[in-house]
Amino acid sequence: MDKKLKLLEVFDNSHPDREYTVIHEAPEFTSVCPITGQPDFATITIEYVPDKLCVELKSLKFYLNSYRNDGIYFENVTNKILDDLVKVCKPRYMLVTADFNIRGGIASTVEAEYFKE
Amino acid sequence: MDKKLKLLEVFDNSHPDREYTVIHEAPEFTSVCPITGQPDFATITIEYVPDKLCVELKSLKFYLNSYRNDGIYFENVTNKILDDLVKVCKPRYMLVTADFNIRGGIASTVEAEYFKE
Amino acid sequence: MDKKLKLLEVFDNSHPDREYTVIHEAPEFTSVCPITGQPDFATITIEYVPDKLCVELKSLKFYLNSYRNDGIYFENVTNKILDDLVKVCKPRYMLVTADFNIRGGIASTVEAEYFKE
Amino acid sequence: MDKKLKLLEVFDNSHPDREYTVIHEAPEFTSVCPITGQPDFATITIEYVPDKLCVELKSLKFYLNSYRNDGIYFENVTNKILDDLVKVCKPRYMLVTADFNIRGGIASTVEAEYFKE
Amino acid sequence: MDKKLKLLEVFDNSHPDREYTVIHEAPEFTSVCPITGQPDFATITIEYVPDKLCVELKSLKFYLNSYRNDGIYFENVTNKILDDLVKVCKPRYMLVTADFNIRGGIASTVEAEYFKE
Amino acid sequence: MDKKLKLLEVFDNSHPDREYTVIHEAPEFTSVCPITGQPDFATITIEYVPDKLCVELKSLKFYLNSYRNDGIYFENVTNKILDDLVKVCKPRYMLVTADFNIRGGIASTVEAEYFKE
Amino acid sequence: MDKKLKLLEVFDNSHPDREYTVIHEAPEFTSVCPITGQPDFATITIEYVPDKLCVELKSLKFYLNSYRNDGIYFENVTNKILDDLVKVCKPRYMLVTADFNIRGGIASTVEAEYFKE
Amino acid sequence: MDKKLKLLEVFDNSHPDREYTVIHEAPEFTSVCPITGQPDFATITIEYVPDKLCVELKSLKFYLNSYRNDGIYFENVTNKILDDLVKVCKPRYMLVTADFNIRGGIASTVEAEYFKE
Amino acid sequence: MDKKLKLLEVFDNSHPDREYTVIHEAPEFTSVCPITGQPDFATITIEYVPDKLCVELKSLKFYLNSYRNDGIYFENVTNKILDDLVKVCKPRYMLVTADFNIRGGIASTVEAEYFKE
Amino acid sequence: MDKKLKLLEVFDNSHPDREYTVIHEAPEFTSVCPITGQPDFATITIEYVPDKLCVELKSLKFYLNSYRNDGIYFENVTNKILDDLVKVCKPRYMLVTADFNIRGGIASTVEAEYFKE
Repeated sequence: MDKKLKLLEVFDNSHPDREYTVIHEAPEFTSVCPITGQPDFATITIEYVPDKLCVELKSLKFYLNSYRNDGIYFENVTNKILDDLVKVCKPRYMLVTADFNIRGGIASTVEAEYFKE
Repeated sequence: MDKKLKLLEVFDNSHPDREYTVIHEAPEFTSVCPITGQPDFATITIEYVPDKLCVELKSLKFYLNSYRNDGIYFENVTNKILDDLVKVCKPRYMLVTADFNIRGGIASTVEAEYFKE
Repeated sequence: MDKKLKLLEVFDNSHPDREYTVIHEAPEFTSVCPITGQPDFATITIEYVPDKLCVELKSLKFYLNSYRNDGIYFENVTNKILDDLVKVCKPRYMLVTADFNIRGGIASTVEAEYFKE
Repeated sequence: MDKKLKLLEVFDNSHPDREYTVIHEAPEFTSVCPITGQPDFATITIEYVPDKLCVELKSLKFYLNSYRNDGIYFENVTNKILDDLVKVCKPRYMLVTADFNIRGGIASTVEAEYFKE
Repeated sequence: MDKKLKLLEVFDNSHPDREYTVIHEAPEFTSVCPITGQPDFATITIEYVPDKLCVELKSLKFYLNSYRNDGIYFENVTNKILDDLVKVCKPRYMLVTADFNIRGGIASTVEAEYFKE
Repeated sequence: MDKKLKLLEVFDNSHPDREYTVIHEAPEFTSVCPITGQPDFATITIEYVPDKLCVELKSLKFYLNSYRNDGIYFENVTNKILDDLVKVCKPRYMLVTADFNIRGGIASTVEAEYFKE
Repeated sequence: MDKKLKLLEVFDNSHPDREYTVIHEAPEFTSVCPITGQPDFATITIEYVPDKLCVELKSLKFYLNSYRNDGIYFENVTNKILDDLVKVCKPRYMLVTADFNIRGGIASTVEAEYFKE
Repeated sequence: MDKKLKLLEVFDNSHPDREYTVIHEAPEFTSVCPITGQPDFATITIEYVPDKLCVELKSLKFYLNSYRNDGIYFENVTNKILDDLVKVCKPRYMLVTADFNIRGGIASTVEAEYFKE
Repeated sequence: MDKKLKLLEVFDNSHPDREYTVIHEAPEFTSVCPITGQPDFATITIEYVPDKLCVELKSLKFYLNSYRNDGIYFENVTNKILDDLVKVCKPRYMLVTADFNIRGGIASTVEAEYFKE
Repeated sequence: MDKKLKLLEVFDNSHPDREYTVIHEAPEFTSVCPITGQPDFATITIEYVPDKLCVELKSLKFYLNSYRNDGIYFENVTNKILDDLVKVCKPRYMLVTADFNIRGGIASTVEAEYFKE
């Protein structure tokens, strides 16, 4: 199992019969540009409808911090965070949004969604 | 009957024939983290379409204040407030939103809805 | 006829064939709490699609000012303003929104709509 | 032909095959109240989907400036601007919004739309 | 092939099976008015759903900078940017928005969309 | 003694040996224009350095509310509030600022100070 | 006597023994560019310490409105407003600030002061 | 020694030879009104010039949290926080500002300073 | 004489006996980085106390636009604009502020002043 | 010589005879808490009056980035940045401000100044 994935912990959803929404906004995400080695900064927002499991907040912090010195592209990191979180908490729905700070005069945002089939 | 529930009072809806919306925004909600014992802070927003009864504003204040020293999780408190308010005022629709302040660099929001069948 | 109603004046809609929208935002509404006698403050927003008549702006001001020393509840005053305006200008559609200032740490909004049958 | 209408100029739409949107926001509109003779101020926003013709920007400025000393009501001026612009550029769709500054403690907005049949 | 087009580079979409969205906001766009020769300034926003290819960010910067001394109209430049980007990255969907600074007291926005058939 | 003055209550300053500052901002002040009879609205800010006495907050609310139906000019009401508060709490320093809402397109502010000799 | 000056009215300062400040902010000033004939727009702020006389608010509105169709430069109009107001109300101090809207991509402000000798 | 005081910890100032400033802003302060028993909320800001000792951040959090269920007046709590912090870290200068949320339509701020003699 | 300097025009100060201030804010300044050739963007603010001459606004626009394709450092361009403007209008005082957009994650501002001896 | 110091480069001040100010604002500073190992985030602002040398912008970026994985206290890092920059560019004046994000519900700022003797 992937080292990053192991950082994520879940707990039982206390209201599994109700369809409700949880949003976590993490404005202190940072990783490294895989080409220049210079740091990138983003706000990561995770919105999801839990099924049987919820993401534990402190473990989410450690998971996001683990990207600090990883070289990874904007599009990649957003999709990977979505894949990892879906894997551990199997939600009914999830949307991951990553708003990256201006680089070369351009700000970039990537949004990726998961719908339970 | 639950002690908290008893704090909530209702009054007769003066316009039961019209479907209209009432929104109460309470930016001074505070409870305690059940693990660390440290205080949490949130803005609680209650939006509802009354049927025969409306929630009395002052009793709502006392009800929300009663969580001040309770140890309770974000997801739990949002769903419990929804359950309690639905029980006492039996609305046509209700949405409870809880916006919690940043903890460990992450701000969290929980949104739960009720639709009268 | 109700004294308040008499304050409201209308004029002929110059474009009755087109469905268009008029919005009046009045941030200086004040009335009195029927229980404590203390003043309440709100922004009243009136959005409507005129049919044959439009609400005259100055008379609307006098109408809203007439609540200054009336003791009346949030839900009541919003529905009464809607009822009165519908009565005098018979619109195709009307939405009255009342945003009340914080009382006891809670801000309240009431929204009521009218659709011509 | 109406004197105001003559101020408006058009040019050929370079991309008539694509349905796209143009928005012009003019925050410096002023006319005169027909009753009191006192000046009124508004932001006029014109959103449209061009068909074969586009509105020329400088001529739009002169057209809007021509209302400077005209006595005209809020509802009238919004509908007249829509009528005039539709006449000269024959768009697929147009929305004119006029946000008037506070008068007597009330701010007013008028929105009128045109859909090509 | 057009000289501007050659500036644009693409890279393989790492998640071609998922429909996700990428947004690039470039607040430092400048070109020249074709009539007066005076500079124009705009924020260009590019939102797209990649198919097999993504737009490379640095090449996008060079592409947008290449308009610096070109004389071109608001409506034209927006449609041309959309045409060029669609040609090189063949997205499932793309929206280009250009917000131009105030000229003659009027701010202008142009929005053009592409849907893959 | 003046009826308004009697509404104001004071309490003993717990730290009379330290020169410190207290600021009360009251955004819900309303009185009446002595000429037109129309309501005026203002934010009243009271900044003072207490000597032996502090102004009691609830009594300050009742004092400010007592102007609700008084006809009084902007300059007068500001100076009168300063005179009354100086009389009852004898501060080392006091500044009263009154920010009145727009009337006839003009917003007005009056600032008056007292220095203990 | 100058026609504009005659529009300005004054009233007796009720508190001539206290040095206090009055600020009038007028965001709806408009005049005409003496060269191009195009309209200019500004916020005029008048701050003064009255001596024996105060400027009457309604007359100030009429005075400022009288510039509506005058062709006059930014620097001139600011100094002329200061000269006129000093002449009629003979204050202890006065500051006139004029914030003009963007013209040719540049916003301009002019500030002129008067101190009683 | 006072129980609250014991919560505060200090550490050695690493740069005692330079006069520099440290500011801690705590927006989550809450205590209880000594009369009504209802909760009060404030932002506490502590600005100081350290001498030989600095205030440890985590202990400051526990110290401020200890007021959670204390009944204490606005003026008192501000002066007590200043007294306690001066006692434990003996700074060259300290300013404590407490911005309390609106109560009865009035927001209050208390500012108290200490200068080393 | 320098080509840029020739673009600047002046006109006679209509109130040379009064010490007053003129501020021009130009948010659309752009030049080129002398090392990378990439564009830089800044807001240039010019504040001055005129003596016998004022800077003509349109000529100031052309002067600032003339830097569009010049390669020049932040510190240099600010000091050169100050030198040029002082040379042509010989003010009593002048302050030039240049706020440059973020480059490499850092925003830079340069402020240079001139005092007439 | 210290490894960090070597990252900083300077260039000759082109206007050493004039006392002017340069401000660099770096909102993407991050280091690590020496106790918990968790990341800290700050905006670092450097304001200085150059003497014979200016700080080169790109080298400043590399210097600030070098703290990314260093465990260091708020007060320490601010004073060390000031010491390092003074050492390499020997300014007439320098102010370093570090605004740290909320930790444990408290935001902290440290400000340290240097004056050339």
